[in-house]
Amino acid sequence: MSTASTALLTDHYELTMLQAALGSGTAHRRSVFELFPRRLPEGRRYGVVAGVGRALDAIEAFRFDAEVLEVLTDVVDAPTREWLASYRFSGDVWGYPEGEVYLPHSPLLVVEASFAEAVLLETLLLSIYNHDSAIASAASRMTAAAGERPCIEMGSRRTHEEAAVAAARAAYVAGFATSSNLAARQRYGVPTAGTSAHSFTLLHDTEADAFRAQVSSLGRGTTLLVDTYDIREAVRLGVEVAGPELGAVRLDSGDLAVLAHEVRAELDALGATGTRIVVTSDLDEHAIAALAAAPVDGYGVGTQLVTGSGHPTCGFVYKLVAREGADGSLVPVAKKSVDKTSIGGRKWALRRRTPEGVAEAEVVGIGAPPEDDGDDRALLVPLVRDGEVVGRESLEKARKRHLLSRAELPVAAQQMSKGDPVIPTLFA
Amino acid sequence: MSTASTALLTDHYELTMLQAALGSGTAHRRSVFELFPRRLPEGRRYGVVAGVGRALDAIEAFRFDAEVLEVLTDVVDAPTREWLASYRFSGDVWGYPEGEVYLPHSPLLVVEASFAEAVLLETLLLSIYNHDSAIASAASRMTAAAGERPCIEMGSRRTHEEAAVAAARAAYVAGFATSSNLAARQRYGVPTAGTSAHSFTLLHDTEADAFRAQVSSLGRGTTLLVDTYDIREAVRLGVEVAGPELGAVRLDSGDLAVLAHEVRAELDALGATGTRIVVTSDLDEHAIAALAAAPVDGYGVGTQLVTGSGHPTCGFVYKLVAREGADGSLVPVAKKSVDKTSIGGRKWALRRRTPEGVAEAEVVGIGAPPEDDGDDRALLVPLVRDGEVVGRESLEKARKRHLLSRAELPVAAQQMSKGDPVIPTLFA
Repeated sequence: MSTASTALLTDHYELTMLQAALGSGTAHRRSVFELFPRRLPEGRRYGVVAGVGRALDAIEAFRFDAEVLEVLTDVVDAPTREWLASYRFSGDVWGYPEGEVYLPHSPLLVVEASFAEAVLLETLLLSIYNHDSAIASAASRMTAAAGERPCIEMGSRRTHEEAAVAAARAAYVAGFATSSNLAARQRYGVPTAGTSAHSFTLLHDTEADAFRAQVSSLGRGTTLLVDTYDIREAVRLGVEVAGPELGAVRLDSGDLAVLAHEVRAELDALGATGTRIVVTSDLDEHAIAALAAAPVDGYGVGTQLVTGSGHPTCGFVYKLVAREGADGSLVPVAKKSVDKTSIGGRKWALRRRTPEGVAEAEVVGIGAPPEDDGDDRALLVPLVRDGEVVGRESLEKARKRHLLSRAELPVAAQQMSKGDPVIPTLFA
Repeated sequence: MSTASTALLTDHYELTMLQAALGSGTAHRRSVFELFPRRLPEGRRYGVVAGVGRALDAIEAFRFDAEVLEVLTDVVDAPTREWLASYRFSGDVWGYPEGEVYLPHSPLLVVEASFAEAVLLETLLLSIYNHDSAIASAASRMTAAAGERPCIEMGSRRTHEEAAVAAARAAYVAGFATSSNLAARQRYGVPTAGTSAHSFTLLHDTEADAFRAQVSSLGRGTTLLVDTYDIREAVRLGVEVAGPELGAVRLDSGDLAVLAHEVRAELDALGATGTRIVVTSDLDEHAIAALAAAPVDGYGVGTQLVTGSGHPTCGFVYKLVAREGADGSLVPVAKKSVDKTSIGGRKWALRRRTPEGVAEAEVVGIGAPPEDDGDDRALLVPLVRDGEVVGRESLEKARKRHLLSRAELPVAAQQMSKGDPVIPTLFA
């Protein structure tokens, strides 16, 4: 993983605000920022937190070395650059752990530090959370619709090459089985897999040559792409070349439900009863759900996953909710803009559950949280303490958490149709 | 700019196809791949090519060093890894230059090399082109709607942190005046600018303290954010603090058209006739167009820019269109999948224009291009020759090209409503 500085992955104004605050003497006021969604994307029942691990890496790499400071020569004055030279985040961060479900106004991150230290992280934290959580939120609907059948992430080509790596990671958190992205394998240990492309078939003089080349090199367990010419003929040929041990065939065009039935019948007639059928081609959660009754063994998802299935960003914001007053105590603050109200004060959050363990409400409050009655679940965990990352964990842990957190939601969470958040957010 | 290897920013199957082709002896067949759009996003009149310069950097950095090969241990066999160790793209690439307009089936990139060399670039080239061109295509509509008024890119927080840098670059190609993104300043020389956030006002005990701090540090030419509490009062205060030399005020909420008129009247009454009004808050090209009659001096655009204004990816594909046959000559190839037909053969492309210089058609053909009659414009330029990048150019040049290319389109191109491509694509 790159350890290059992340300090310039930010907005110009974070730096000029710092300069002005250093000038007015307010830069070192203790401050609490909160990263939260004002709402869910239209019609969505719940969201999924992702990017936590990446954000922790990014905070650690947020340093102003000589090369970075050089860029800021005409952005901020010399005293500000001097202050930045020794920048190191020394505050505290609490947050929802990765893979957790969220609702409107869930306080996903609470950052407490001096204004100077905390404001500089705004853009970068939002970039990571807004992107990764958008992907995970879409991915969770897809894996829920797919049930026991595996989903394969293959959207790298449809998004920025680095966003692709983060998307593969976020999809894995939300239950995808594998990804096509090799950098995600390298950086995060996401398992990768692949089939083959039409170009591979077209490269060879005949489809038979192509299939023989693939099976000979990659084994009988490989997945053959069967829709370059005639699907029926390709399936017959595939089983002829690989035998009934052929791993899978991939359908990438046409009416997938109809074709899956036809191909299944043909495979079974050829004795290839164990050969799986993988479908791809602009799938989203609705298409996956519609294929539930078709004999499909796996879904390859690309464009709609990496673009958040209609919602490519979460709309999270990062707002100052409290800061040190003249007497040294923390004062809740909030702006009054007509359509963008925020709620002042440092928050706690818990998921209220029935005695049977079904989520009933997201409860968000200021001050001391209520006594845990045994059914509620506290949602904020320490991520950074005195500048040291304490919340790092494995992707496998986040992946398991997501399954548990999603399973706890009322069944309406799994409806693909548009609706309200599946549980209300209550302000205590 | 990072010179880290880009070789793992790709799909697993590119590598396994390579292994199978090395095994069957077809890997070294001369091949032509084409990167093209099957269609424009629904309702769009034209698209804009961006990412060319980034793609050239990425091709140069596509190397399989020891660290990369280590990751591939369980992906491909030892002979394949050995072949990869000396990988260096040695072929030719032609393409539409950056900033150029495109239409359905425009052959945006033509890559000629061995199958092995060319297939490996598929995912990475598509990632870059699909992302950057989606942003530039949206940006071009926004700058067209804004006319002479500057557009400011400020969407970094709404997209992946590296996608944000590429988005700032693509927006600049398509006419944006500035960006908030400091990494875009560092890597590409994109001019950056910034105002301030609500948190800065809330940090101070009073709005007056905040404005004094900002003006004192950043000068009277700064832009004050005036909607934290009461806009009317904030505008009065801003002019009181900075004098009539106040650079600008920013409105980030509410009914921007109504507010702009009110604020303009107030500023004028206060003698601040030169103070500009900058508006932000979920603007897209339609909102920008709707504000044409309002006294607005600049548009800050975030979410809708970096998400491609409803179309976050272009849907470009990278298809094998010709390859060496048994006799050594290039054979056009094309798959026959029902809904994803491609057209075989290596293409040329030109923009047919009237004697008055108005674009009439995108003409795409195979074989020898027609004699230039003086009005047509050839669209493919050499980008890489024998593995050496020859098509690198400044962003300023791309930016100028975009303005000229867009100006050449029929006026219907500027309609914000949904419609057909503004000129037809003809196959010669």
